[in-house]
Amino acid sequence: MALLARRRLPVLSLLLLEAGALRAAAERSSSSSAMEEIATEKEAEESHRQDSVSLLTFILLLTLTILTIWLFKHRRVRFLHETGLAMIYGLIVGVILRYGTPSTSGHDKPFSCSQENRPFTTLLVNVSGKFFEYTLKGEISPGKIHNVEQNDMLRKVTFDPEVFFNILLPPIIFHAGYSLKKRHFFRNLGSILAYAFLGTAVSCFIIGNLMYGVVKLMKLVGQLSDKFYYTDCLLFGAIISATDPVTVLAIFNELHADVDLYALLFGESVLNDAVAIVLSSSIVAYQPTGENTHAFDAAAFFKSVGVFLGIFSGSFMMGAVTGVVTALVTKFTKLHCFPLLETALFFLMSWSTFLLAEACGFTGVVAVLFCGITQAHYTYNNLSVESRSRTKQLFEVLHFLAENFIFSYMGLALFTFQKHIFSPVFIIGAFVAIFLGRAAHIYPLSFLLNLGRRHKISWNFQHMMMFSGLRGAMAFALAIRDTATYSHQMMFSTTLLIVFFTVWIVGGGTTPMLSWLNIRVGVDPDQDPPPTNDSFQVLQGDGPDTERRNRTKQESAWLFRLWYSFDHNYLKPILTHSGPPLTTTLPSWCGLIARCLTSPQVYDE
Amino acid sequence: MALLARRRLPVLSLLLLEAGALRAAAERSSSSSAMEEIATEKEAEESHRQDSVSLLTFILLLTLTILTIWLFKHRRVRFLHETGLAMIYGLIVGVILRYGTPSTSGHDKPFSCSQENRPFTTLLVNVSGKFFEYTLKGEISPGKIHNVEQNDMLRKVTFDPEVFFNILLPPIIFHAGYSLKKRHFFRNLGSILAYAFLGTAVSCFIIGNLMYGVVKLMKLVGQLSDKFYYTDCLLFGAIISATDPVTVLAIFNELHADVDLYALLFGESVLNDAVAIVLSSSIVAYQPTGENTHAFDAAAFFKSVGVFLGIFSGSFMMGAVTGVVTALVTKFTKLHCFPLLETALFFLMSWSTFLLAEACGFTGVVAVLFCGITQAHYTYNNLSVESRSRTKQLFEVLHFLAENFIFSYMGLALFTFQKHIFSPVFIIGAFVAIFLGRAAHIYPLSFLLNLGRRHKISWNFQHMMMFSGLRGAMAFALAIRDTATYSHQMMFSTTLLIVFFTVWIVGGGTTPMLSWLNIRVGVDPDQDPPPTNDSFQVLQGDGPDTERRNRTKQESAWLFRLWYSFDHNYLKPILTHSGPPLTTTLPSWCGLIARCLTSPQVYDE
Repeated sequence: MALLARRRLPVLSLLLLEAGALRAAAERSSSSSAMEEIATEKEAEESHRQDSVSLLTFILLLTLTILTIWLFKHRRVRFLHETGLAMIYGLIVGVILRYGTPSTSGHDKPFSCSQENRPFTTLLVNVSGKFFEYTLKGEISPGKIHNVEQNDMLRKVTFDPEVFFNILLPPIIFHAGYSLKKRHFFRNLGSILAYAFLGTAVSCFIIGNLMYGVVKLMKLVGQLSDKFYYTDCLLFGAIISATDPVTVLAIFNELHADVDLYALLFGESVLNDAVAIVLSSSIVAYQPTGENTHAFDAAAFFKSVGVFLGIFSGSFMMGAVTGVVTALVTKFTKLHCFPLLETALFFLMSWSTFLLAEACGFTGVVAVLFCGITQAHYTYNNLSVESRSRTKQLFEVLHFLAENFIFSYMGLALFTFQKHIFSPVFIIGAFVAIFLGRAAHIYPLSFLLNLGRRHKISWNFQHMMMFSGLRGAMAFALAIRDTATYSHQMMFSTTLLIVFFTVWIVGGGTTPMLSWLNIRVGVDPDQDPPPTNDSFQVLQGDGPDTERRNRTKQESAWLFRLWYSFDHNYLKPILTHSGPPLTTTLPSWCGLIARCLTSPQVYDE
Repeated sequence: MALLARRRLPVLSLLLLEAGALRAAAERSSSSSAMEEIATEKEAEESHRQDSVSLLTFILLLTLTILTIWLFKHRRVRFLHETGLAMIYGLIVGVILRYGTPSTSGHDKPFSCSQENRPFTTLLVNVSGKFFEYTLKGEISPGKIHNVEQNDMLRKVTFDPEVFFNILLPPIIFHAGYSLKKRHFFRNLGSILAYAFLGTAVSCFIIGNLMYGVVKLMKLVGQLSDKFYYTDCLLFGAIISATDPVTVLAIFNELHADVDLYALLFGESVLNDAVAIVLSSSIVAYQPTGENTHAFDAAAFFKSVGVFLGIFSGSFMMGAVTGVVTALVTKFTKLHCFPLLETALFFLMSWSTFLLAEACGFTGVVAVLFCGITQAHYTYNNLSVESRSRTKQLFEVLHFLAENFIFSYMGLALFTFQKHIFSPVFIIGAFVAIFLGRAAHIYPLSFLLNLGRRHKISWNFQHMMMFSGLRGAMAFALAIRDTATYSHQMMFSTTLLIVFFTVWIVGGGTTPMLSWLNIRVGVDPDQDPPPTNDSFQVLQGDGPDTERRNRTKQESAWLFRLWYSFDHNYLKPILTHSGPPLTTTLPSWCGLIARCLTSPQVYDE
């Protein structure tokens, strides 16, 4: 399928614009008449001005959002989260742009020029003796040529979908990894991995199949006017399986709700974003041999599974490796004397993960996630106090701006996007499918996990997890990535509505739901670990769980224990200034290396 | 002249890519053969990968620079500043790219297609039944068509010049304004304004005229192969008049050199960047009527002066207004309870200045400078303690990254830029001209200023200012903005060499120069103001200046006194939580307004 790769083209050309040599716009010595030059110049200036105005629109939106958030926080309003607010403002501006601005038809008439076989990426056109350079933007279907002329302002506020994957999502996802509350995350690692991997796969498969049923039904009753393949349905399943309980988590944070539930929800949502991206790439890569056969093909299926595993493990490795390199660099230099340098290095290394992964054909966003987790786990310990707060704050601001931008863009897109296809049957079917898809993995998986878990996932936790299946930025970004065909347009419109509904209605109902399910609030996460009797914590309304949860190591799953001892004995001492000296944990024949790698600060402790 | 406006076109299209509607790359339902699609896809993926690799190159460069800077700081090496280092690494990578990579000739043969009069901005090409959309990149002169095929990697590492003006310079300039040490800046306001405005104008004029002489000479001896007008010479004067003593100031900061000298140098360099930008725009706007007359035209000259005044005051107003709005918002809301929101708002408002100015046809970079100064002077006082450090640190990191990026790019450009024209006569002439140009404004202006100044600018200060005329990021950005013609290419190459020479040689000589000129070091800037006898400070080696410099208000120039009392009595109380209550400074009939505007905290003090 062409979409993933070809779509990427405009992405970085965005940052890396080509040879100044070629954009010799102002050939002042050319013999052209001054009048003509001035006209083109005026036009270009106008275009630049419009670009500025449309960016200003978004900044105004974000500023308004910030001020309203403040007002809400000030008055302790909790029924609407900042992202929901950003969407509302986006909606309003979208309506104004759609119905308030005159539809300007560009003067750039499409000009047809027959030519041989394949498209060139660069085109030189001779206009009465002067040469102009053109670059390929993409193919458009013959039926849509009239769409080229449309409202200028609407075009200006429409971003390239790859902007989301290359500029807006990376800071959001990195921040998610970097701000992971490590202890609670690792304590529930097994369950989180199960929910994120198995859960997302189950959800994707169930939603895909249910939607295929819906599509069949639509075909029967004549509601479908174009093709809608089984792979499209599975893609929809992958897109919509990425949960984003940002609203729920914000309220959890504010009310200091149960830390384990927080860790489960947060961990799941962070990892299933990664799973959903890679899953959707694999589904797109599922190309049965032969012309247009959208039937099942075992070879192609296993190839897709291979692509999934390859991309996922590759991205994971990339992220982990750059994180480890950063940790080593910050450990073995005295960079911490210069927080500015340290912060800059940290930022650059984290960014390079993204680029490295993209350059190697892996998924940058996934790599950035694991890089964030590694940085938080190792590098963070080596940073100076100032750099710790600097890096945290830097990514917090970037995350905040990017997230609110995406949500306000979503609001805007409902009215400014030109190719919406709202099909009531499909939309209702999708709502039912996501509900069933989530139920079909939360409850069975929880049951299975509870068989192995000492500290069971109680019923009210399961209900809360079921309830918290909000959809957000990732689902939107995946859906907008390809809106070329009829089926994808319908999927995009439906995704948009699902995001709106879940963020507003489900998000708004979090506080009542918490109290209805008797989930304890007001927990101090840092108070949890010390093995004193004071931290004897009781789960409200859940009798059997009233046991101590202190001796983390002993109680956790074998997976965690294995990882913990390896991490504690070898990785932490090598990569950070903490942990037991390697001279005690490594066998004696590694004495020299152990002494070199162990930080002198370890012995001081 | 077309260059300023037409050049802007690609700028924001960089952020605001157009309608997803049009980039329907993956028309999967089209009847094209799968093979062809896969080929195009591979190509696009390859291009994306190359983009990532070239960005990675720059990140690697910056990481190396950071590590080496650390080593230098660690070992207290002062002869080479980080910017000089970044240039060296850039140079090395440039050499590798130039001579180490094979020259790949693209398969994209230029395709000529005759067509009527004017170029379209959008082109639809019919390739055997499929339609492809192309966008206009710019005009290229017929003689340079063969340049379209060149080394792919060299093209990839060449940025659009507007990236500097729209992405890299704004944070640098904003940070300069925001980190201005206000007290010392305002105390020397008159002198700084004189150096920045009169000085830059004098320097531009003298350099322009001297270079015109050089050009005439080159024409005589047959060294000039193409046109070189008087306006080009003046433009060169404007480009090269923007000083950037970043190296000198870094050393001043480290050694805690005299604060007034620091304020003079820093203030001059910050403001003359703004003057140089606007001056170069005005010179470009100087279009004598009639065909190709590059002779003097009084009407066009006054129009240029008008353009200068208009752009400058407009940009100033924009910057000041958004700064004031931010101050008001942060004063009258309790946003300071939420540092994240406050920081985000601060960032967005500061960015909107840039866009607002660009949208109105003013200069964004200049607006951002004045916005930074206003934010530092008013808004900063309203921010919470955490936001103060957050905003400072955020812009510090952005500034650091952007500055080092520009300098490493400069190093790279020396070898990767494809159209260098090094003319020994022109280069030597330019070095002499910038020396004379700086001498011709520093000494006479200092003499005139000393007539009015109580606290004279001593000879050693004047010599140090003369010495500190380094050229940097701004000169480079102005020079690379237009490299379409022969004269501009020669100017660009010369500017590059001047930057290298001044940063390496002059920058490296700062510490010896400081001690040779007996300029005092180890001054505590915060120790200066308190009116006790302890702050009795003696200027080394300058007898007559051994008087107290405490009673700032009384001793300063009338301009400063006027501004100070207005600012202290009205602006500060209105815009911040400090200053005397407005109820005491405003006439009694404004009682109600005064009470509303005065912060309750003022009465507590």
